[in-house]
Amino acid sequence: MAKLLGRSTYRMENHPTILSSSAVGGGMERDGPLGSCFDYTDHSGMFGEDSWEKAENKMQQLALKQALHKASLQQEDLNILFAGDLLNQCTGSSYALRQFMVPFLGLYGACSTMSESLLMASVFVDSGLADRAGAITSSHFCSAERQYRFPLEYGSQRPQTAQWTATAAGAVLVGRGELHESGRRIEVVHACAGVIEDPGITDANNMGAAMAPAAACLLKRYFIESGTQPKNYDRIFTGDLGQVGSDLLYQLLERSHIKIDDRHDDCGLLLYDRQQQDVHAGGSGCGCSAAVLAGHILPSMMMGKYRNVILAATGALLSPTMVQQGDTIPGISHLVHLRLVDGKEGAH
Amino acid sequence: MAKLLGRSTYRMENHPTILSSSAVGGGMERDGPLGSCFDYTDHSGMFGEDSWEKAENKMQQLALKQALHKASLQQEDLNILFAGDLLNQCTGSSYALRQFMVPFLGLYGACSTMSESLLMASVFVDSGLADRAGAITSSHFCSAERQYRFPLEYGSQRPQTAQWTATAAGAVLVGRGELHESGRRIEVVHACAGVIEDPGITDANNMGAAMAPAAACLLKRYFIESGTQPKNYDRIFTGDLGQVGSDLLYQLLERSHIKIDDRHDDCGLLLYDRQQQDVHAGGSGCGCSAAVLAGHILPSMMMGKYRNVILAATGALLSPTMVQQGDTIPGISHLVHLRLVDGKEGAH
Repeated sequence: MAKLLGRSTYRMENHPTILSSSAVGGGMERDGPLGSCFDYTDHSGMFGEDSWEKAENKMQQLALKQALHKASLQQEDLNILFAGDLLNQCTGSSYALRQFMVPFLGLYGACSTMSESLLMASVFVDSGLADRAGAITSSHFCSAERQYRFPLEYGSQRPQTAQWTATAAGAVLVGRGELHESGRRIEVVHACAGVIEDPGITDANNMGAAMAPAAACLLKRYFIESGTQPKNYDRIFTGDLGQVGSDLLYQLLERSHIKIDDRHDDCGLLLYDRQQQDVHAGGSGCGCSAAVLAGHILPSMMMGKYRNVILAATGALLSPTMVQQGDTIPGISHLVHLRLVDGKEGAH
Repeated sequence: MAKLLGRSTYRMENHPTILSSSAVGGGMERDGPLGSCFDYTDHSGMFGEDSWEKAENKMQQLALKQALHKASLQQEDLNILFAGDLLNQCTGSSYALRQFMVPFLGLYGACSTMSESLLMASVFVDSGLADRAGAITSSHFCSAERQYRFPLEYGSQRPQTAQWTATAAGAVLVGRGELHESGRRIEVVHACAGVIEDPGITDANNMGAAMAPAAACLLKRYFIESGTQPKNYDRIFTGDLGQVGSDLLYQLLERSHIKIDDRHDDCGLLLYDRQQQDVHAGGSGCGCSAAVLAGHILPSMMMGKYRNVILAATGALLSPTMVQQGDTIPGISHLVHLRLVDGKEGAH
């Protein structure tokens, strides 16, 4: 049974373990620095479907099927799926996952969904409510752009603060796992649920600034509640703050004398090559942190590159309707702490 | 620590208890058979705001504040809030709850959100991850109608299968509660997470038929996994199947020789007087089951009218975009089993 630390930090007690992960992406993602990390890519971003929304469904299905395959599991072996996405009514998840006959608890955390779903999956496994649980999310540049900003055909200019919604999906399976054949496994050690922070941003092309305060408050509180410091982690990944949001995060944390810039990476800055690819302030979207986690962070940990990692995915709770009514864009962030465990250290 | 029964039925072991509940509604709801059950109503449905979306935010805020007040709690006393709603990007919840500095895990279960959020709140309290947790949701006829169907000004005719989205919000607080001064309390005993079922309905004015199969499958599996039968419950409430969906539910359950019509009520049929109010097949919306639970079911239990109750809220995962692309409307349902405990039976 996980233990509550402080207000909303959860310390796992039963070693919820990453069983497998899978990343799916489009052409831009394949051409980026992490292109080789994807299990499946489609240059057209259509994945054989006739609409962007259906393509996004297909990405989630491919990611989940591949994650099940890697863990040698069938859909019957999963007790529960946690998923959400950016599409209205979260159809990227619900329409994708209706073909799997697995109990489903839908989430909405905007681009923080990967850490929210992994938090939930870990808590359910740790508390004995699931033997195996899945955490899945996705985003698609084309379906997001037309829903949140302008029709693509309009060809609107994007300011330098704008981010590029990743065409990507990631799935992670969690269980009371056995050691990998390499004698290693990755456990979820802590998770922390964030508070909504609204810094008053009204520009849908400046998501980084809308999300940075939520990430800063979350990290600050997490370090206190878990009794840890940045130096206890090899790497701290934020979800998709991009360059603008990352710079702002450092400034906000500095006020509390917390320094993370020597060990911080942002998934939105890892996914694309900003010199070669026209993504402006970096990548974003639920699929961004999901694919970077599934395709890059977890495999890097298994290779021994990092032992202790924080993933703090960040979400802008952006609503075109509310922004049209003159309202601002609140942000949220949730985090998980992942640890590489060698066979000899295992508590199993 | 809650115990897993079967695939996704959770038996609580630490007596998560309803601390308080509050219901807020509009004019139609005040004029209905449960009008006196609301803590707060506004005939105009505007709640002092200048847009329907902001009015929906206000309803959630009023419901949460009132629930906190009834339990003599401050927002600082809550570890976590679970909430979601029907508005795009779930802004009914996120924009409402940003003014409360409480950790927030956003959900999307369409009209099943009340039982999904109460499931989560109960699991977190039972597993020791929260001392006190909140479950909140809302819907608003005007914001829903223009988002899902037609602009209100268009004055479109509604077929007899159509349901009326409730202008209502409900908040329920869960904790490791002490006995009420009456010597009674209501505990969450079981919860069960449902599977997405898609019966192939394409008509956004026939939500009951889209949701009934999900409710039937959930109830059938729950009775098996929990080892209980309909006769173990005084009342089984479904969320918002309306008349069309309720009739279909009986037919579907009869195939498995399960009979619930002698102890079944549908929140969508309780909220309005279909003889006097022009709601066609009944009420719907996240706020429907939320307000009926908070304002009617829980108070009726505390008065001793029912001892064992199932609430199976039902959600149509309807997306106008997907329906425009020729796709169908999947449904989902989650349930909680509530029990009235007298002082003498208490395990505390």
